[in-house]
Amino acid sequence: MSGGGCVYLVGAGPGDPDLLTLKAARLLTQADVIVYDRLVSDEIMALAPLGTPRVFVGKETGCHHVTQDRINEILCELGTSHRHVLRLKGGDPFVFGRGGEEAEYLRAHGVPVEVVPGITSAAACAAAAGVPLTHRGMARSVRFVTGHVRAGEPLDLDWAGLADADTTLVVYMGLATLPQTSAALMAHGLSPATPVLAVENGTTPRERRLSTTLSHAVEDLAEARFQAPTLLVIGRVAALALGTDLPIFHREAAHRLAVAAHG
Amino acid sequence: MSGGGCVYLVGAGPGDPDLLTLKAARLLTQADVIVYDRLVSDEIMALAPLGTPRVFVGKETGCHHVTQDRINEILCELGTSHRHVLRLKGGDPFVFGRGGEEAEYLRAHGVPVEVVPGITSAAACAAAAGVPLTHRGMARSVRFVTGHVRAGEPLDLDWAGLADADTTLVVYMGLATLPQTSAALMAHGLSPATPVLAVENGTTPRERRLSTTLSHAVEDLAEARFQAPTLLVIGRVAALALGTDLPIFHREAAHRLAVAAHG
Repeated sequence: MSGGGCVYLVGAGPGDPDLLTLKAARLLTQADVIVYDRLVSDEIMALAPLGTPRVFVGKETGCHHVTQDRINEILCELGTSHRHVLRLKGGDPFVFGRGGEEAEYLRAHGVPVEVVPGITSAAACAAAAGVPLTHRGMARSVRFVTGHVRAGEPLDLDWAGLADADTTLVVYMGLATLPQTSAALMAHGLSPATPVLAVENGTTPRERRLSTTLSHAVEDLAEARFQAPTLLVIGRVAALALGTDLPIFHREAAHRLAVAAHG
Repeated sequence: MSGGGCVYLVGAGPGDPDLLTLKAARLLTQADVIVYDRLVSDEIMALAPLGTPRVFVGKETGCHHVTQDRINEILCELGTSHRHVLRLKGGDPFVFGRGGEEAEYLRAHGVPVEVVPGITSAAACAAAAGVPLTHRGMARSVRFVTGHVRAGEPLDLDWAGLADADTTLVVYMGLATLPQTSAALMAHGLSPATPVLAVENGTTPRERRLSTTLSHAVEDLAEARFQAPTLLVIGRVAALALGTDLPIFHREAAHRLAVAAHG
């Protein structure tokens, strides 16, 4: 084991600081150094003491500022020179966060790691929109996949298994590959009328939601100019989204609609 | 709108109070009344002010103290007579928590509802055990199902779709029906050697973990006398479970078993 400290691999949740865990919030104030990427919101980083050193390792599709290999090395170096290294990741570190690779690398190099779960985007967006991921008579299970592919690679998923009307399908980072996803799901038997909820910048002040169907999703999202990060919820439960009487709305409008719906 | 307040349908996470969200922790101190069930840990209830009235609506398999219909009514009644009603549920309210039913009932009766997500058991147990739910080259997606069935009913799941070596399968409340689950998965082509991680009372001081395989899971868990609530993680990633090098848990039985299983 190294003479250093511990790397805390921590889920920062979807963006809203209120959805941090007590443990993540405490580590934010106690860390000797914070390593974070672009999926960690400014509102959350604002909770860290001003004096705490920060290392930005943001990645963007098609434009990797820092490679995963380099991130692993940085964490390893900091883990041997600092006592409490906070590696903050958007959502949950073990759900499409590549946290497994970072943990594996650190352990292989004798650096102690502790993983702290975070609210994953699917749970946060579902709660905000009033969409249960599982629901009696509508969805007996829920499945998370990623629509992210490396440049030039096809989206190769188990379409026959995914085209299941009894399961809620949540697609992370699925906006760019939505044309393939929706076509493949319909080709494998999922109804074109299957409800789809899209959530852009979930739980942040910039959140937007759009309710559509599998056959209209590509067109509707393009027209509304949705951009990454956008989460897609595909399945019967998406029809329960609050405010489905309007094709698109901002968070403030959603609030008004929710109040109106309760009235 | 009713003359009352709002029902907050809040995920309490898996048991460890440190995994509450900041929002849940605040609502615990501000609520006028708290409605909770047996999946909310004592450690978490201890964070509520002593003077806050509590309503226990615990349910246990085969012995429902309070029916779901009655819970819905209670929430509705409290929602019209109190300003801040905290309905605290284990894990996440929208993942096998029947939160969708409670939200639907309340909205239908004009009671405002706000849903606050919680750390679901899968994420918490995976983090504690060092098991990424998705992982490059091992698991491209993750799926949550429930093994819970009503007395006398068979476990009717899409076994062909579930028997997918590239997906991590997490079974909530799956201990009682594990004999059916493991047999069906193997009958549909999942390898008998598929790694399985079982976590009993995840993230609590009573947590125990056991590493086994699909073909030995029933026997091993019976021998170790695992009881509900137990979460099952089935898939390649389960082989990454820590058993030997992390002193996170004071769970000596699981430690010994893991060591034995890893040989």
